[in-house]
Amino acid sequence: MEFLTGLKKKETLELPELLQEGMEGKKGKVNGIIHSIRDMGNIAFVVLRKRDGLLQCVYEEGITNLTLQELREGAAIEVEGTVSQNEKASGGMEIRAESVRILSNPFRPLPIPIAKWKMNTTLETKLNLRPISLRNIRERAKFKIQEGIVRGFRDFLTQQGFTEIHTPKISSKGAEGGANIFKLDYFHKPAVLAQSPQFYKQMMVGVFDRVFETAPVFRAEKHNTKRHLNEYTSLDFEMGYIDGFEDIMAMETGMLQGIMTLLAKEYQKELDILDTKLPQTDRIPQVRFDEAKKLISEKYNRRIKNPFDLEPEEEGLISQYFKEEYDADFVFITHYPSKKRPFYAMDDPADPTYTLSFDCLFRGMEITTGGQRIHDYEMMLDKMESRGMTEEGMEYYLLAFKHGMPPHGGLGIGLERLTMKLLLEDNVRETTLFPRDLNRLEP
Amino acid sequence: MEFLTGLKKKETLELPELLQEGMEGKKGKVNGIIHSIRDMGNIAFVVLRKRDGLLQCVYEEGITNLTLQELREGAAIEVEGTVSQNEKASGGMEIRAESVRILSNPFRPLPIPIAKWKMNTTLETKLNLRPISLRNIRERAKFKIQEGIVRGFRDFLTQQGFTEIHTPKISSKGAEGGANIFKLDYFHKPAVLAQSPQFYKQMMVGVFDRVFETAPVFRAEKHNTKRHLNEYTSLDFEMGYIDGFEDIMAMETGMLQGIMTLLAKEYQKELDILDTKLPQTDRIPQVRFDEAKKLISEKYNRRIKNPFDLEPEEEGLISQYFKEEYDADFVFITHYPSKKRPFYAMDDPADPTYTLSFDCLFRGMEITTGGQRIHDYEMMLDKMESRGMTEEGMEYYLLAFKHGMPPHGGLGIGLERLTMKLLLEDNVRETTLFPRDLNRLEP
Repeated sequence: MEFLTGLKKKETLELPELLQEGMEGKKGKVNGIIHSIRDMGNIAFVVLRKRDGLLQCVYEEGITNLTLQELREGAAIEVEGTVSQNEKASGGMEIRAESVRILSNPFRPLPIPIAKWKMNTTLETKLNLRPISLRNIRERAKFKIQEGIVRGFRDFLTQQGFTEIHTPKISSKGAEGGANIFKLDYFHKPAVLAQSPQFYKQMMVGVFDRVFETAPVFRAEKHNTKRHLNEYTSLDFEMGYIDGFEDIMAMETGMLQGIMTLLAKEYQKELDILDTKLPQTDRIPQVRFDEAKKLISEKYNRRIKNPFDLEPEEEGLISQYFKEEYDADFVFITHYPSKKRPFYAMDDPADPTYTLSFDCLFRGMEITTGGQRIHDYEMMLDKMESRGMTEEGMEYYLLAFKHGMPPHGGLGIGLERLTMKLLLEDNVRETTLFPRDLNRLEP
Repeated sequence: MEFLTGLKKKETLELPELLQEGMEGKKGKVNGIIHSIRDMGNIAFVVLRKRDGLLQCVYEEGITNLTLQELREGAAIEVEGTVSQNEKASGGMEIRAESVRILSNPFRPLPIPIAKWKMNTTLETKLNLRPISLRNIRERAKFKIQEGIVRGFRDFLTQQGFTEIHTPKISSKGAEGGANIFKLDYFHKPAVLAQSPQFYKQMMVGVFDRVFETAPVFRAEKHNTKRHLNEYTSLDFEMGYIDGFEDIMAMETGMLQGIMTLLAKEYQKELDILDTKLPQTDRIPQVRFDEAKKLISEKYNRRIKNPFDLEPEEEGLISQYFKEEYDADFVFITHYPSKKRPFYAMDDPADPTYTLSFDCLFRGMEITTGGQRIHDYEMMLDKMESRGMTEEGMEYYLLAFKHGMPPHGGLGIGLERLTMKLLLEDNVRETTLFPRDLNRLEP
């Protein structure tokens, strides 16, 4: 009988092993995809794309076993040779290839120049050729940083006593209401795709006090803009026993600090590739919604058209204001008007026109919506009634409140938007692996 | 201007702070939900449910400010008092309450006895009252352990150079084919919900070599069994540069070892609550599909009805065999028949009736399906043609192969099933937060 006993040590070396001290002059075996070939006559530079960077292999006629003509960009190969120092090579090391083995060959040459630093292709082309365009070093670096954001979010919240949950994406009723719900047939019953894990994460506050989820959400919005997606990854948390909604903003601030610390520590290579400087998170200003509108109206000489709404242009100006006045990249806008918030938002007892809620803007764009929620059952029923809502399809949600819930609140963050603003991209599709929008359902 | 500067130190103490050395005799403030009240006359034990356990508060008439009648099970309260040792209390500490503040009251008493160690309610009742039944200490412990499984999966793979990805759940075509696909209308275009991230994780092997995802998948199967769900959390990984499909089983073995190590280290409390002993993962037997059928046919005197299929009963017997013969909880069944595997599975060159693929059984149930995939473009086209498939809707997937892919493979694990078998539950709904099945779309 044969047994599996765990990881096997691979013969091939990864970049961190190759670049460590004492490797010079040693024999080593590596694998990778041929990213580019530069033929210099008697020698050639065959650059391998590996998961954590590029590696230059030196092909020498008469020394390397294959002919250069047998090597093609896009082929997966295994190279054996001698590790040697070369200051000009990425990482300061290269391999002088002695034997090359082809693991797989491409059927056709690459349709776009992915080995170039900047590909100079349109976003549309990049998206159409997504499995290929992502092989570009700068394109893929964006998603490595996106991984770091999610890791930072989870690691920080886990340290703070949060429990990770997995809630259903098919349900009988949407949490946010409105028209932007994808509908489907669920064994002859009408069902919807989750617009957010709102109801579920609130119910779970009664179980674990503090919960988070990182999962897809679905919005059937007919917006065709640079900031909207119809499916995105939502970073959600919800926490009990808050003294006020400021506790949630404090948690978000700590979490953003945690993310930036992790990125600086483990993702510096990708930050350098994208020339990204991390934003300041040690001091994030908070300003009331109505106050923010007044500030920009005064400074930028702009008439307030609708006192109860914030247009994208105003979000931009508020960020501009706080950048200019306080050198702040993030700003919390608090006390959103009640009629612009869902029924579960806690109204401000001092003035129920407004809620104990907030948005977080990052470089001109809303990346977070959060706030305190109603936890009292009767207050919830009153609020629903005042909005003409019925309990139909909400029985399970209301059950949690009927039998006792602590004061609580939470927030949701759009992962792709946060990545977009961090990397100074101007279209959220640039930082979405496989975007879904009005016109795009593939790849 | 006010600023958020990060986490604020809370006045209230959490259990780990309360239970640390030197707290005895000190004043402390805690909060929690009243889990149970035991009235002994002049004193009463008010047990608080906190996120990481229970805390006994001693109510003494004349000392505590409120009357006992004002305290109700299900209420969220804040208690201030003196920390004292009591060996009989959970954790060896209790609080002698001096002042109690009610944060929120339930509207109605609890409908099920969640404070009992075992609730003695049917699964159906537990699921109908999910936001309440999960407040039971044993019920919620299952999902804390589930969190640990996911953390162990991610942490191990991150250490092994995998990148986490987020792939779309709405697409134009399902990866696994067949009839079990949920359909929806996507802005007047036909769309489906992802049965698995198969196509996307393979495409991403060309980008990051090694990728993983932990996300929901959707199967419109009309099974009504104890082991099927219509939405579940899939733990997926895919890795390039494999020497054979044994590399994938070795990675899974290492990953299972990583999960068990993390559970033993950080989730012992929950394992104790559920009386769970972790399974052995240091030596997992592997056996060929046809060989396994023969072994159980001989040992259990059972006729092989269909040599190309494995019935649930046979899965049970194979596990029984390897438990009896090798004391093994897990077993890898390799070389599944080609006609039972999707088109992308790599056929065994030695006998193309079978594939270079495997299932992992855990205590009688399949929890993993994995294997080597076809990486050669022409081989892929041939296989599709031989199955009568067209390229329609697959253009983007095929693009990745057309322009070069390394040899690769991967697997998918059903999180809820893995949890179920780990905790020796007999219905997958017991280890699903909010299950979705033929009849259940709520809560």
